[in-house]
Amino acid sequence: MDKIIRVDMSQLTTRTEAVPPEWAGLGGRALTSAVVAKEVVATCHALGSNNKLVFAPGLLSGTSAANSGRFSAGAKSPLTGTIKESNAGGTAAQMFARLGIKALIIEGMPVTGKWYGLQVNKDGVSIAEESELVGKGNFAVVEALSERLGKKTGLLTIGPAGEMMMLSANISVKDSDGKLRSHGRGGLGAVMGSKRIKFISIDDAGAPGVKLADPAKFTAAARVFARSILDHPATGQGLPTFGTAEMVNIVNAAGGLPTRNFSLGQFDRHEAISGETLREVIIERGGKPKHGCQPGCIVQCSQVYLDKQGNYVTSGLEYETIEMLGANAGVGDLDVIAEADSLMDDIGIDSIETAVAFGVAMEGGVLPFGDGAEVLRILRDEIAFGTPLGRVMGSGAGNVGKVYGVRRVPVVKNQGIPAYDPRSIKGIGITYATSTMGADHTAGYAVGTNLMGVGGGVVDPLKKDGQVELSRHLQIITVMLDSVGLCLFLGFPAADMPTCVPALVDMLNARFGLKLTPEWFGLLGVTTLKTERAFNIAAGFTNKDDRLPEFMCEPLPPHNAVWDFTGEEIDAFWDF
Amino acid sequence: MDKIIRVDMSQLTTRTEAVPPEWAGLGGRALTSAVVAKEVVATCHALGSNNKLVFAPGLLSGTSAANSGRFSAGAKSPLTGTIKESNAGGTAAQMFARLGIKALIIEGMPVTGKWYGLQVNKDGVSIAEESELVGKGNFAVVEALSERLGKKTGLLTIGPAGEMMMLSANISVKDSDGKLRSHGRGGLGAVMGSKRIKFISIDDAGAPGVKLADPAKFTAAARVFARSILDHPATGQGLPTFGTAEMVNIVNAAGGLPTRNFSLGQFDRHEAISGETLREVIIERGGKPKHGCQPGCIVQCSQVYLDKQGNYVTSGLEYETIEMLGANAGVGDLDVIAEADSLMDDIGIDSIETAVAFGVAMEGGVLPFGDGAEVLRILRDEIAFGTPLGRVMGSGAGNVGKVYGVRRVPVVKNQGIPAYDPRSIKGIGITYATSTMGADHTAGYAVGTNLMGVGGGVVDPLKKDGQVELSRHLQIITVMLDSVGLCLFLGFPAADMPTCVPALVDMLNARFGLKLTPEWFGLLGVTTLKTERAFNIAAGFTNKDDRLPEFMCEPLPPHNAVWDFTGEEIDAFWDF
Repeated sequence: MDKIIRVDMSQLTTRTEAVPPEWAGLGGRALTSAVVAKEVVATCHALGSNNKLVFAPGLLSGTSAANSGRFSAGAKSPLTGTIKESNAGGTAAQMFARLGIKALIIEGMPVTGKWYGLQVNKDGVSIAEESELVGKGNFAVVEALSERLGKKTGLLTIGPAGEMMMLSANISVKDSDGKLRSHGRGGLGAVMGSKRIKFISIDDAGAPGVKLADPAKFTAAARVFARSILDHPATGQGLPTFGTAEMVNIVNAAGGLPTRNFSLGQFDRHEAISGETLREVIIERGGKPKHGCQPGCIVQCSQVYLDKQGNYVTSGLEYETIEMLGANAGVGDLDVIAEADSLMDDIGIDSIETAVAFGVAMEGGVLPFGDGAEVLRILRDEIAFGTPLGRVMGSGAGNVGKVYGVRRVPVVKNQGIPAYDPRSIKGIGITYATSTMGADHTAGYAVGTNLMGVGGGVVDPLKKDGQVELSRHLQIITVMLDSVGLCLFLGFPAADMPTCVPALVDMLNARFGLKLTPEWFGLLGVTTLKTERAFNIAAGFTNKDDRLPEFMCEPLPPHNAVWDFTGEEIDAFWDF
Repeated sequence: MDKIIRVDMSQLTTRTEAVPPEWAGLGGRALTSAVVAKEVVATCHALGSNNKLVFAPGLLSGTSAANSGRFSAGAKSPLTGTIKESNAGGTAAQMFARLGIKALIIEGMPVTGKWYGLQVNKDGVSIAEESELVGKGNFAVVEALSERLGKKTGLLTIGPAGEMMMLSANISVKDSDGKLRSHGRGGLGAVMGSKRIKFISIDDAGAPGVKLADPAKFTAAARVFARSILDHPATGQGLPTFGTAEMVNIVNAAGGLPTRNFSLGQFDRHEAISGETLREVIIERGGKPKHGCQPGCIVQCSQVYLDKQGNYVTSGLEYETIEMLGANAGVGDLDVIAEADSLMDDIGIDSIETAVAFGVAMEGGVLPFGDGAEVLRILRDEIAFGTPLGRVMGSGAGNVGKVYGVRRVPVVKNQGIPAYDPRSIKGIGITYATSTMGADHTAGYAVGTNLMGVGGGVVDPLKKDGQVELSRHLQIITVMLDSVGLCLFLGFPAADMPTCVPALVDMLNARFGLKLTPEWFGLLGVTTLKTERAFNIAAGFTNKDDRLPEFMCEPLPPHNAVWDFTGEEIDAFWDF
């Protein structure tokens, strides 16, 4: 029987509960959002004892369904003040699922001043004081814990940023290679730090495993599902070949590549940071151009990046990090970006928020545009140690703007706008504006339809027509993906391959012995979005927060596109 | 004829306009708020070209009415995001009034990268490039301009904080002694800095002067008005004797003296910073225990503070500065506080917001509680020069909390809560919560009624009964004071002396040839508050922003009082 485990960090106690009926059909984001919306007072201080940190595997995590190992973390975000779900790869989701843990809910805050580690295993959760690893970077923590607990141990950790409760702090998840994946956005690492938890280890020895109601039907459906992924050009060819960095040239060509803190839509050195160049460099140096962030991934959009001497630097170098540091901060050098990515992983800080923050800091005169050496120095010497400048940079793009009196600050609900300029890719702008999470491209990735024709129809990126409907449709679908434990890119075959969603529904029915229909997914999406929004409204957000920053009315070269949606047009998003 | 002068800093042009009929009966805050509400897009970036900075003297400024020389500055606040009016003493209000300038409205933002000075005189306003004074502290600016333009020149200036657009930057106003008074709260100095105006000089030579419709009636009423001020124990005795610092012992006795970042309600060394001690020290050293912030002041609550060697340190050392640095930051030493006050005046930064920020920084481990030497060092070496720590400290208490992961952050609408703990002085808590300006004791000074019986009736500071009604009544009256150009303390005789308000109305009628009634004032207050609130709602504020911070539920010794108003009870404030 699946269970819910609660950890009370105020009392340093744990308890196991049955899954209440209302949460039985939920997983991943749908579950973390339901728990946060029900149990967290929306107006609480996100770093106080009234916030809760919730982890949940997806509905299909732990099964053989392709790419179903994304792990959801949820809480009230200290960065945005909204509800937050952030999901990541790694091995945690599958281990939780095999242990029958539907959700881990961490409450309260110790008054002891001490740090703790949580150990999750088949018997539940235990809490132990931790001192050895406090102050250590994520790499050292993973290495030490792999030695202490064995290489197979699953791990969730925070780095110095999380310990210092920096608002961009992430939570790292160990992957199969002992490397790190991140619950990046919204400062959930600060929430974990506020609860004084340095790490959570997961041991699935003796786990009951995931039981399938109809194994034969499941296997058949899983095969069709996998086929649909491999047959789609994006998930079958583009992403495995170039990684997400394939978008550099595509977005540059569309004139929507944020450059010099969103003042240009194209970067003159885009070739130096393109997916094509990335692939060449990786192959030349003997790295891996294909790599999965989670066991069971058949897309393999990740990679292993080596330096010139052939030493490991980082894996999972994403388009958003490359673009925001490369073009938006003007650092057109993959080696510098990869090193920055590694430093951010070690410090435990969101590489998107931090990269956006660098763009704002450059506009504010803290460092020059393009100064990669200074970016690395600030990461290594300032952010990692929490110097005043490091604290500011770690508190997110919005706060950098406030502290340095910058007017052009690309944030929505105080979360940094990622690597697609909404003026010339308008669909993603609607997602930034309306997402319950603050600016977040993954909440409804309209870029696919705007630039690559995903979903069949064409929605012109430079026109307003159809963008609100597109973003709404995608945001509803995305809840499905985030709740099943699927990676975002499965939205491509889900939209284009007629066999994909039926196979997904078949898998769910075969897993749980249910008779769901594809319409059920839509309902899950609608319900979850509305639950999340109700939380935000209770926290004090209004439609005035569903707006892009004022400077988006400046024309963006080369199209001289402006953000021209009226408030009323944006607000129509919620008419469902 | 009164006029309105507009300065367009984008075009570097000026123009003079007739006063439109809708603004004819307004002055001070009623006028600045009417202009901002009508002309500023509520959702604009407060440091961008769409914000406007408005200066207006009070309706009776420039006449012989006692204490009528407060000068109002208004804009959208970069600190709070709300509408903002902040008023100060000095000579500017009276000079503007004599020049017939009902309001100076500064719009736009230059694209030249240069700094400017504005010269106001009988012919209007001129704009000149300024380079000599850029980067200089306020004292050096005033000295240089007094030499350049003559000792009688009126001045509005910003210091380095305003140039750097720090969110706590103030606007300084020269007083009759060539010392400084401040438009302190809400970061209006950053707005002036964003418009690249280092100073505004005022030359009233050849000014038409204020014409009275009925001089004899005015003189008679002014005499009655002055008598009512001198006969009230607070304005006639307490304030002239001890200054506003008389409140230290009163508030300490009531258990509402914020101590160690609002964790205690009494300070064990309160005697060391009391108004009684302040007076003794000043007299002993040959300073002035009585001093007016504006010509025509008959209360004289200001003072001139000298150091042990008898050298001038500061004037206008207010209770809030003394309390927040003295008790709340634990620096129980008047010499250190006076030096800090002088530094803050020179840097051009709000002494309340900065003092609150120090309390939060101390809780966040940036410096120890009570470390006065480090407070002075941070002011002198960090804030003045805009180092990263200086930038953070200059961005207000709320941002210090965000950057340092502090949970107990005393702000409402991101503005620091001043020197009265709302848990044990509940009336002022309602003012903090509901004021359209963010936490601001001057918006409706319920402390007078809660602790000193002003207004006749008794409203128990520890009970909820009557506080909402009290705060509402006082906030409406305060608009009257802020619009006529009167200092806040005239609220005491206005409440208690039956002759005061009728005399005030008589003066207005004699000045303008009108037939106003005392009820007209109430209407002005109601209309202005509603106009301000409508701006805030348009900017995205809701009743959820009318709340005190979560940590106010912690019991405050010695009464172990908590903030126990429900949201519904607070929201009832606006039922009028």
